[in-house]
Parts: sequence; structure tokens; C-alpha cells
Amino acid sequence: MKIHQDLLEELIATRNATETICKPLQIEDYVVQPVEFVSPPKWHLGHTTWFFEEFVLKENAPDYELFHKDFAFVFNSYYESVGEKVVRTNRGNLSRPGVEKIYAYRAYVTQALIDFLEKNEITKELEDVIEIGVHHEKQHQELLITDIKYILGNNPLLPAYSNNFEENEIDKHNQEWLNIPKGLYTIGHSNTHEFCYDNERGVHQVYIHDFFISNKLVTNEEYVEFIEAGGYENVLLWHAEAWDWLQQENIKAPAYWHRIKDKWYQYTLGGLIPLTEKAPLTHISYYEAFAFAQWKEMRLPTEFEWEAAQHKFHWGKRWEWTESAYSPYPNYKKPDGALGEYNGKFMVNQKVLRGGSIATAKNHTRITYRNFFHPHLRWQFNGLRLAK
Amino acid sequence: MKIHQDLLEELIATRNATETICKPLQIEDYVVQPVEFVSPPKWHLGHTTWFFEEFVLKENAPDYELFHKDFAFVFNSYYESVGEKVVRTNRGNLSRPGVEKIYAYRAYVTQALIDFLEKNEITKELEDVIEIGVHHEKQHQELLITDIKYILGNNPLLPAYSNNFEENEIDKHNQEWLNIPKGLYTIGHSNTHEFCYDNERGVHQVYIHDFFISNKLVTNEEYVEFIEAGGYENVLLWHAEAWDWLQQENIKAPAYWHRIKDKWYQYTLGGLIPLTEKAPLTHISYYEAFAFAQWKEMRLPTEFEWEAAQHKFHWGKRWEWTESAYSPYPNYKKPDGALGEYNGKFMVNQKVLRGGSIATAKNHTRITYRNFFHPHLRWQFNGLRLAK
Amino acid sequence: MKIHQDLLEELIATRNATETICKPLQIEDYVVQPVEFVSPPKWHLGHTTWFFEEFVLKENAPDYELFHKDFAFVFNSYYESVGEKVVRTNRGNLSRPGVEKIYAYRAYVTQALIDFLEKNEITKELEDVIEIGVHHEKQHQELLITDIKYILGNNPLLPAYSNNFEENEIDKHNQEWLNIPKGLYTIGHSNTHEFCYDNERGVHQVYIHDFFISNKLVTNEEYVEFIEAGGYENVLLWHAEAWDWLQQENIKAPAYWHRIKDKWYQYTLGGLIPLTEKAPLTHISYYEAFAFAQWKEMRLPTEFEWEAAQHKFHWGKRWEWTESAYSPYPNYKKPDGALGEYNGKFMVNQKVLRGGSIATAKNHTRITYRNFFHPHLRWQFNGLRLAK
Amino acid sequence: MKIHQDLLEELIATRNATETICKPLQIEDYVVQPVEFVSPPKWHLGHTTWFFEEFVLKENAPDYELFHKDFAFVFNSYYESVGEKVVRTNRGNLSRPGVEKIYAYRAYVTQALIDFLEKNEITKELEDVIEIGVHHEKQHQELLITDIKYILGNNPLLPAYSNNFEENEIDKHNQEWLNIPKGLYTIGHSNTHEFCYDNERGVHQVYIHDFFISNKLVTNEEYVEFIEAGGYENVLLWHAEAWDWLQQENIKAPAYWHRIKDKWYQYTLGGLIPLTEKAPLTHISYYEAFAFAQWKEMRLPTEFEWEAAQHKFHWGKRWEWTESAYSPYPNYKKPDGALGEYNGKFMVNQKVLRGGSIATAKNHTRITYRNFFHPHLRWQFNGLRLAK
Repeated sequence: MKIHQDLLEELIATRNATETICKPLQIEDYVVQPVEFVSPPKWHLGHTTWFFEEFVLKENAPDYELFHKDFAFVFNSYYESVGEKVVRTNRGNLSRPGVEKIYAYRAYVTQALIDFLEKNEITKELEDVIEIGVHHEKQHQELLITDIKYILGNNPLLPAYSNNFEENEIDKHNQEWLNIPKGLYTIGHSNTHEFCYDNERGVHQVYIHDFFISNKLVTNEEYVEFIEAGGYENVLLWHAEAWDWLQQENIKAPAYWHRIKDKWYQYTLGGLIPLTEKAPLTHISYYEAFAFAQWKEMRLPTEFEWEAAQHKFHWGKRWEWTESAYSPYPNYKKPDGALGEYNGKFMVNQKVLRGGSIATAKNHTRITYRNFFHPHLRWQFNGLRLAK
Repeated sequence: MKIHQDLLEELIATRNATETICKPLQIEDYVVQPVEFVSPPKWHLGHTTWFFEEFVLKENAPDYELFHKDFAFVFNSYYESVGEKVVRTNRGNLSRPGVEKIYAYRAYVTQALIDFLEKNEITKELEDVIEIGVHHEKQHQELLITDIKYILGNNPLLPAYSNNFEENEIDKHNQEWLNIPKGLYTIGHSNTHEFCYDNERGVHQVYIHDFFISNKLVTNEEYVEFIEAGGYENVLLWHAEAWDWLQQENIKAPAYWHRIKDKWYQYTLGGLIPLTEKAPLTHISYYEAFAFAQWKEMRLPTEFEWEAAQHKFHWGKRWEWTESAYSPYPNYKKPDGALGEYNGKFMVNQKVLRGGSIATAKNHTRITYRNFFHPHLRWQFNGLRLAK
Repeated sequence: MKIHQDLLEELIATRNATETICKPLQIEDYVVQPVEFVSPPKWHLGHTTWFFEEFVLKENAPDYELFHKDFAFVFNSYYESVGEKVVRTNRGNLSRPGVEKIYAYRAYVTQALIDFLEKNEITKELEDVIEIGVHHEKQHQELLITDIKYILGNNPLLPAYSNNFEENEIDKHNQEWLNIPKGLYTIGHSNTHEFCYDNERGVHQVYIHDFFISNKLVTNEEYVEFIEAGGYENVLLWHAEAWDWLQQENIKAPAYWHRIKDKWYQYTLGGLIPLTEKAPLTHISYYEAFAFAQWKEMRLPTEFEWEAAQHKFHWGKRWEWTESAYSPYPNYKKPDGALGEYNGKFMVNQKVLRGGSIATAKNHTRITYRNFFHPHLRWQFNGLRLAK
Repeated sequence: MKIHQDLLEELIATRNATETICKPLQIEDYVVQPVEFVSPPKWHLGHTTWFFEEFVLKENAPDYELFHKDFAFVFNSYYESVGEKVVRTNRGNLSRPGVEKIYAYRAYVTQALIDFLEKNEITKELEDVIEIGVHHEKQHQELLITDIKYILGNNPLLPAYSNNFEENEIDKHNQEWLNIPKGLYTIGHSNTHEFCYDNERGVHQVYIHDFFISNKLVTNEEYVEFIEAGGYENVLLWHAEAWDWLQQENIKAPAYWHRIKDKWYQYTLGGLIPLTEKAPLTHISYYEAFAFAQWKEMRLPTEFEWEAAQHKFHWGKRWEWTESAYSPYPNYKKPDGALGEYNGKFMVNQKVLRGGSIATAKNHTRITYRNFFHPHLRWQFNGLRLAK
């Protein structure tokens, strides 16, 4: 069969969108890796390209020639079953291939993809791989934005990325508590025509007890109250691991907050600005979300509660930490082969986040989307919504 | 009111049982801490005593005099809110107080408890604290046994602890798959007359889908097949964190297994013996339990499935890893004060185990008991039961 | 007084020479720091500039305005007494200031220096500071070359830096053993008109016993014999710390050597080439130099023996490890103030190297020059000359 | 030949003296290893015994039977060439063999030695090994004392070891500066009849410049002045590595000093006492010795200066840090075989101490004795004597 025209257009648009994100960068910004969980932008550019070369072109396109024989080694990431790779912490040590070369690699692979897809019949299985490749690249678009924020926001000069990225849109609604009645709810992705990841499949029933959930995200202003009430010093609010983490990392506020002359400032992609008090809180860990909720004598929703309630409130500005550990749904099956490494192997020691953020790529989140991170990580646009 | 006579007797019996466990030890065995998560036996003896001194006698017994002013510093463990304490990794660095002195401390506190309880009226709240103290000490009895096994079983001389501790009782039943029908199940502890921990409370409904669970634990023999089939070398069976752990720790078999001249041996509390093939597997991590289940194309039960099905099979020889992360039940409330640090603060990054083991103290487990450990830990008598 | 015209010209030439070294680099190469002891080239460019701004212009040039108020923080290195600075391991995390900006900084400061020196009288003390600044920058020129080699030579693509940098010139002399008679020798720098570092001053007498020293450096060919004789596996040849280092780092050959299909190759600044067998060995640690000498049943010369004998042989292609620990000469005095941190504070746990290398800047070494590094470091062009 | 009667008696006396040192210990004190460089007393007892079993009895005594086949593994220390061994950091993890068993091991080996030596002719080479074994055990006697001090002095209960160990004898002489004239001095051990270590041999000439050396050790009182003058906060007094060490370890005073209610106390083997102001300072690192000397605008003597001057002052209460790195003397030759690992392999990154201390075994130091430690270590009875 021929590839869906829609998918082909989405593929091309996605390849372009990735590059658009990088437009404001200087060459030097593409190279650095200030901390293990951040990757250099040039690595993201290469890795999303390698994905298509490795899983689509190499095996399917007749006469396709690799752009460079060593790029698989440089740009593979976590696919242990596909071969050797540069150790993650070393990504920032590589000055070569240079940025220009990587853009040439992108252009070469994108063109080869288009040529191949326009001229050939493909199987349904291969179309699925291409669709995953598109969504994979959208995930890296979000990581690009948060990694760029980390790179610039941890530079002592605090340079801005762009003035056109509004992080702090204020939700003007009044605070309300939405009541969700007890009962059996259907959880998971059931629309067979729409793309979703393997971890959303396995539609199943979950019994939920009667609860209340806030129509609004917690704001900066509310979190300042928590800080001023000594929240970071009250051991009884924190998990044991959280408390150790606070001491080791000397954490006293969300990431990117700066205390200057008795006032709070926040680094944004537009540069350092006074804290926007009414804006939704972001760049907090699960630990901080939990401690804040403890202090309020409330709690975080589970991912099931969130999914059952989400149609009653606005979401999409912050990834919302839930109380749920990231675990397989009943009857979850890992896909076969290398792409089976995509989601399942991370299903331990991480927490689910629901919703989406201002950095999430267009059409890349949905009601059933399960994002996940280790509980101490803060560089995504994470926030929290209370339940009780 | 007067303390229940039953509780007083249980208290005395528990204090004695702890010391009985230590009978076979040499003085030197009481002292060492070969790894952070193991505590020296003398520390367990002191810590369980300090608990009663700190939470019962100090605040309630008129004219009670501390046995030694510095023992709170030495024997406090994780109660951050109660004051300074010896860092956990340093417990094995302390030769003093010596074993004899600690037994004197135990005798002094036990006698003071009896005197106090026989002569005084106490509140219901205090009785609850005493009951928790008894259960706390029973937990440390199990830890004493597993810590002693670690201490002796990691000594190059592999000395035996006792010939009277049978680890390897064989379950003679045939393998069957028990079918549990879908439906709403009541989970949690509802018997208000029986003791339970805070983490079991909050009875609630859980919807469970139709599933099968094995009537038997996985045996050593079955696990040898997994090893021989290359289970430890097949990356696709493992979580990402598990795979890293395997490489770092060079793990190729369960803890206490030794490969000598092409045969498997296992260190037991009775010394090194040939592997008992039909005995239930033990000393595995959650990671290994999960990988084994993947290899079998099955899975671990959730803690809810286990609780719903447990009346249909025998349990109590091995703590059984479940797929469930250790999280609060709906409406879970931490108790107030220092004892609120008991369970709730560990509710992240750990996995629930259900059942009980041959090292579990008498009357210390029950249908709703939730044990929990980090997924890589193997020194408890952990095993696994498959579901599908 | 007016500055010496020679010094002014040397200053300008040195500023230019630094930039010439960087000509072959791509922007990305300026940024990375693959290991703590290597600095990003852009850091060297900025740091050598900051030195003149901080120690010359800021305090002496009327109306001088800092190029950027935060650059002192970014480009200070080890002058603890001068203020806060970026932690050394973080230098590679900084994408900004960018390369172009740093070149602008260089141009701005160089011009300000020239303007200031041409128009003003200066003191002898300030002239000394400028002279130190020139020599300081020459030291960084050598580090630039070796750091660039590290950055490119540890990249999996093994890119070349330049085809015009000959590392492997062969010494055609026959091997001879030069006999140096016992007696008192004058050691240290006595020419008051020529520049030298503080650590060379304090001319003093050293009694040297009769010994022999080789007229030639050890060659690659001779070192291959050592490897093939199992030198890296024979514990009795090595210091205890060296043996631990070998195991931890899995060292089996000099740095930049590659074993490909049973042949030795070496990465050079011109790219990967077959090992030049007759060329002088380089990129070895003191530990390896010592073990090789042990194996030969000879030894390394002391720095005093080297200085007493150096007029009898050619030197300057490799820094030569000596047996001497880096210690103060009798009557050594640290200069006052921040520049006192230059040499003296490193006089522990390091070994002296004598001579100079093909990467050493013009006019930057001399008979009395004392280079020093920790014994395990190999990224300089280090070699060895045997004594007996 | 028959063994010298004197040596046999010294052997027996030495074996006994080791056990006498341990008399005041409780069993528990024998077991712990609070830090890598401290060994458990029971390990010292076993290791010194293993030395005689391995190097004397096993190879020479007819029909000798090993006490226990695994003890070589447990009690070997650093002789890499002799076989596998327990990793140093794990010594404190071993509760077995127990103390009683180790004393039985000692008795068994001592008796076997006496029997063997009384009944057999031995070679000169073997007599030399026995003599080394005696001196080796005396070295461990000093380590036993300092390790016991570390074990008890880092216990929060600060228990005393013995009231009969006087650490703080006061030197009543007035401070004088002894002038040593310049000239050639003979350094090293030349008495062929007296025992010495390999590292003292190779008598040679050293030219020493005119200098002054103090007749007295620096006292606690003088060091308090340094502390009060802000010595620990003045970066310019310290080596770069020393400064990092101060920050990492949070060092603000010598080891075993306690600041309680604005007064200084010191832990001694007799327990905690107020600082003895006039007593010679001890438990300092080389770094602190150096910084103190810098502050005084003086310096430490070299080991050669010390040896040339030592007949003019009293010494033997404190090991005296010198400025000299531990390096081979001219013509130093490592002995052949395993005993060649004794000294030579430590000749890098350590500093020489001269003299002896109140913990040094009888007849175990001499004018030419070269003790050596890494510059940050403080648990020996180290002190300092100024030169200028």
C-alpha cells in the first residue's frame, strides 16, 4: 500500500518543526550537556534522524546508503538490543560531527525518506514504524525545549532563548473543587484509528472512590506560601528519599527560581523575570508536589482519577504529577523487537504525569497519554493539581 | 485503664524471642555491618529497646531514669524528627556500647516496662504505642535473621548459624492455575480488633479483571532453567535500571548461590549445601522476578490480585514480589507525631511484597500485610508466584 | 618607565600565536571538556585574556571599563584569593559566552593593553606582571594543543586537527650512555636578565653521584617490547598506586594507541596513523615511565641529574619524567599576593618533568624550567630518558 | 647455622608484646574498621602471624601444617604477588575468624616457629626474613595503638583505652635555634650489623645549605595561636590539594580535638581531657604542618637536614613531617621476590616522617629510619619541628 498522505505530510512538518525550535541557538548551544539527563541539541537532531535511518531506510529502502558508517554509534541512545553506543554521560564530550554536518545528515535522510515513500509501496507494519518515528521526534521536540532551557538557564550569564515563548499564561478561573462520583471508569486508549503508545493500550476498568479535584493548577503564589511557612524545613512533609535529596542538593525552591535582594525571580526562556505570582507553578519534582499537598492536607490525584476527571477542567500547560507509579496496565504487552524497548523497560521507580505542557508538540498529547519521570526530576514543565 | 494482660505477655515473649535469635552468635558477629542495608545485630538489640525507652518510658513512666544519656544518639534509626542519630552507614564502626552492656540495657528497659505497666493505668493511645513497639520488634526479629545470614554468608569462611533453621521446605502440591473471576474486591484491613499497620487501613474497593494465579511458588529448578536459557544475558527481559544493575554488580544468579565445579550450591543458615532443586526459589530481586516472568511470558500479580486470591493457596514461606508499587491506599492518613514516620515516608520507589517468610516472627503477618523493599534488594527471603 | 619594546612585541606576538593555534578548529571544538583536566579551547582564550584584564588593566589603566562584568567569574581558574569562579568540571557546560564574543573580548583587551602601554609609564612591578602574563599565555598555548588533541583524539570519529604538526620526528643518533662525574652542581636559574618562574629561583648546590644517562629518548619500538614482554601484567614493576590505576582505568598501552587487527596505530594531530616505531615514545604516565625503567633494570634521572647533564644531549621533543617530586628549592619564597598562587601551591604529590615538547611555545622552555604533573597524567607530550 | 639466640628472644618478646597491647580491649573492639586506613585489631593479630606462616614455616618447616587453609586469603594484605586477598575496605566486615580463634592461630604459629628454630639449622637468608618479620610486627604494634585510638576516639561514647599511656609528656627545654653549617653529609644506614629497611640503604652524600632547626617540637599552645589567627581560613597558606581537603572534610583543628563550650579538649588513649597546652602538637597532616610553617614564615626541614641535625636535639615523641617526598635513595635496589613489595612500591605521593613516637615499639626506630604517609593522614602521632 501507499503511505497515507496525511502521515507523509505530518512527517515532513515534524522534521521541519524540530529545526525551527533550534533556530534561535548559537552553534555553541548545540554542543553542551551540563547534566546527564540533558542531551546536547545536536544529539537530538541526530538521534531523531538516526531513528528513521535505522528502522526505516536501512532495512527497507532499496540501495539506501548510510550517510556515515559511525553515526549509529554516535546517535543511538537506549536501544541496547541494536548495538553499541556512546555512553549517555559522554554525549556532551563530542564536538564532532559538527552542527552543519548534522543538518546535512537530516536533509539527506529526510529526502531519502520522501523519495522512498513516494515511490514505494509499504506494509502496514512499516507505516506504524514511521508513525512511531514521528511521535518519537515530537517527544524529542519537547526535550529540546527543556534541554535548551536547562543549558541556558544554568549558564551564569542567563541568556534568553526567545521572546516568543510564553511560559506563564495565567488561568483566570476561580478555584473550584470538582466532585467526581464513585464508580467504574474505563481507562486507556480505545480509539483504534488514532495513534497511541503501547503503554496506553489495554483498556480496562478501574473502580474509583468518590473524590474532589481542583479545576486549577497550583500557582507560584501558593507555593511561595509553602516556602514561607517553612515547608522545605519540615521533615514530616517529605518522603525519606526526598529529605535526603533536599539535603544533598541543597534544594530550597523550584528549579530556575532565584532569590535576589529578598525577591523571587524566575528564569524563563525569555530571560530572568520577576516571579509571575498568579502563573501556574512549574519545575518542581514529584517530591515537592507531594510535600506541598501534605502541607495542604490534601493529596495528588492518581492517574486514573485524572483521566476520569479531565473533561471537567482545562489542561495542557503543565505536566501534572500524579500519585501513580508508572506500571503496566492489565494485559500490557511489549511490542516485539527493538521498538519493544520503547516504554516497558522504564516501568519501575518512575511516576506518571498527565496532561501536557506549553513545550509539548502539537497533537502530541491526549487524554490517555502517560508521561513518566523519576520523582526528583524538575527540568520539564511539571506542575501539580490537588485532589482530596 | 490497665494494659491488656495478653499484650503484656506478648511484649515479654517478644523481648525474649529477640534474644533467643541471637543465642548462636559469637560476640564478634554482633558488631559488623558489611553493607549499608544490613545492621549489626547489637544495633537491632539496642534499637528495639530504645523504641520503648523513647516512646513509652521517657514520657510516661514517673521517675524513669535513662539507662545512658547517649544511647538515643546511638540507637535511633530513621526518626528524623526525634533528634540526631548515628549515620546509618556508620553503625558497623561502633564497638561500644559492647554486647554485654546492651543486654544490660535490654534487661533494664524490659524490667522498667513491666514495672511501669503492672503498676500504672495507661491510656488507649499509649497501649497502641506499646502494641506498635511489639510489632516493631518483631519486624526487627526478621531483619536480625536476614542480617545474620548476610553477615555469615558473605564471610569467606561461610560459617553456619544453626542447624535448626529449615529454609528449604518443599511444597508437594502439583502446579495448578487458579482462576479468579473479575469483579469488585474489598482490599485492606477492616478488623478493628486486630492490630495492623497504618498502611493497611483505608478499606476500599478495587476492580480486578479475570486472571490466573499459580498455586505454587517458583522453584529453584525452574530458575536454573532460566539461567541456562541465558536469561541474565537477554536485555529484552529486563527493566533498563535492572540491566544497569546486573552489569554493575556482576549479577548472574540469586544471592547466596555459588557455582563450584559446575554445580550449584546455596549458602543457608545451616551452611553451604547443594542447591535444593524442588525448594521455593529465594533471595531474588524484584528485577529478577520480573525478568523470569517475562521469560515465561507471564507476569507478577498485583498486590490486589494477591489479596483477592490468597485464600486459595498456601503462603508464608517466601515474601512474594508483586507488580504493585508501594503507594498510599485511598484515604490513607499518616499518624501524627514521630510514629507518623513509620510507613508513609517510604511510599515511593519501592515494591510491595505480600505473604511472609520462614524468617517472619510468629503472628507477624496477615492477609492484608504490606511489606515493601527497593526493587534491587535480595537479602530477605523473597520469592515469586506467577500470574497470567 | 616605558615598557621594553621587546616585551610589548612579544606580548602582541603571543596574543596572535594563541589565536593561530585555534585556526583549524570548528566552533564546536571550542566548547567541550571531555575530562576534568582538559579545558575547552574557548576557556583558554578567555582565561588568558582575563589574566591581563584582572592583573594589569583593572588596577592600572585609567578609565578602563570591563568588557563584561561576569567574565571574571567565568574565566578565573585557580586563583582562590581573587574571587568566586566556575567550578573546573563545569567549564564544558557553558555554551556562552560564545566563541565570537570571546574573540571580541580578546581584541578589546589586547587593544586596551597596547593603548595603555604605549601611552603610559609603568612600574618595574607591573612590567613583571605583564611578562608573567605573556609566559602564562604561552603555557596555555601548549595546553591548547594537548587539550585539542584530547578532544579530537577521544572522539569516535578521530578527526584530524592539522597536517602541519609533526609529532614524530626521529632522532637519528645512535644510543650512547653519557657518564656524568660526581660532584657539586649548581642548580636553578641565575640569569637575572632572563625571565624565569619563581620555582626555578634559589640557585643552590646539589651533590650528584656518578651516573650514566642516555643520549636518546626511549622509542615506541622499545616500549612495544615492554608491552610484549607482559610489562603491564607484572605487578612487581609497578608502584602500588600505579597498579590500582592500571586496573581501574584498564590501561594496557600509552594514550592514543589503538590496537587494530594485531597492529598498533597512534592517533596524532594529523589523524590515525600506524605507529612510528623509531619515534620517541609519548603520552605515558610517570607510572609507566617508572615501570619501563624497572623492567630495563635502570631508573629515571632526578631533575638535578637532568639539569647537570642536559648540555650533552638534544632535548625539547618530549617532556621528560624525572624521579624528582615537585618540591621547593632551598630558600624558595612564594611571591606576595594572588600571583603567589602560581606555582608554590602545587608543590605536593606531583612529579617534575624537564625539557620541553613539540607543543611547547617558542622561547618558553629553558635549562632550568620545571614542569610538573600528577604521576598518572598522560595527555601532555611526555616521554622518558633512562639513567643508570 | 643456628638462629642467633638474641633474635629468637626478640621474636618471642615481640609476639608477646603485640598481645599485651590488646589486653585492655573488649572483644567488640577487635572487630571494627571505621575507615579504610584503619585495620581491625584482630586483623593485625592475624596478619602478623600469617607473615611468619607464609614466609617462614610454609616453605621451610618440614611437615608444617597450615592452621587453616583460608587464613592466607583473610590475612594477606598488600602482597599482590602472593595471591588473592580480602579487599582492604572489607576487613571490618568479617566477624570470623573470631578473636579466640585468632589467638589460637597466634599460639600455634609462635610455637611452631620456636620448635622449628630450636631444632633446625637455617640459612642467613631465612634469618633475614625472620628479622624482617619481627620488625614488621613491631610496625603493626604502632598501627595497633593508633588504630585502637581511632576506633575508640571516633566512637560517640569516647571510651578510654588505658590510663597508663602517657601521650602528652612536656619538653621543658627552652626554645633554641640550632645552626647547622653547610657541607656534605653522609645520609643513610651504614652499620651492617644493625637491622635496617631496604629504603635506608644506599649510603650517599647530600650537600646541605646552612640552616637553622628548632630544638623543640611545635606545641599545642602555638597551634592554638595559628587557629585563632584564622590559619584554617587563609587560602594563601595552603597547598591547592590541602585547601580542597579542608573544605571537603570540614577540617578546622587537629584530629581528636573537640571544641566544647569555648574550650579545647583532646581525646587521648586515657579519654577526653582538656588540651595540654605545653605538650607537643600531634595528629596533624603534612598539609597542616606546612601551613603552620608558612604562617610562621618558616618551613619544614628536609629529611636530610633532619638526619644531619638530629644528634643536637631530643626526638622520639612524635613522628616529624619533613618536606621530603618519599623517593628512592641513589642506588636503591628493591629486594627480590614478595618481600620486594615491602617499601619500594610506596615511593610516590607520600611524605617522609622522621623520628619516632610514643607509640613506636621499643628498638624500632633509629637515626636513619624513614617513615612515610600520604600527606592528609593524621591518625599517627605526627608532629612538626620548624626549620628556617
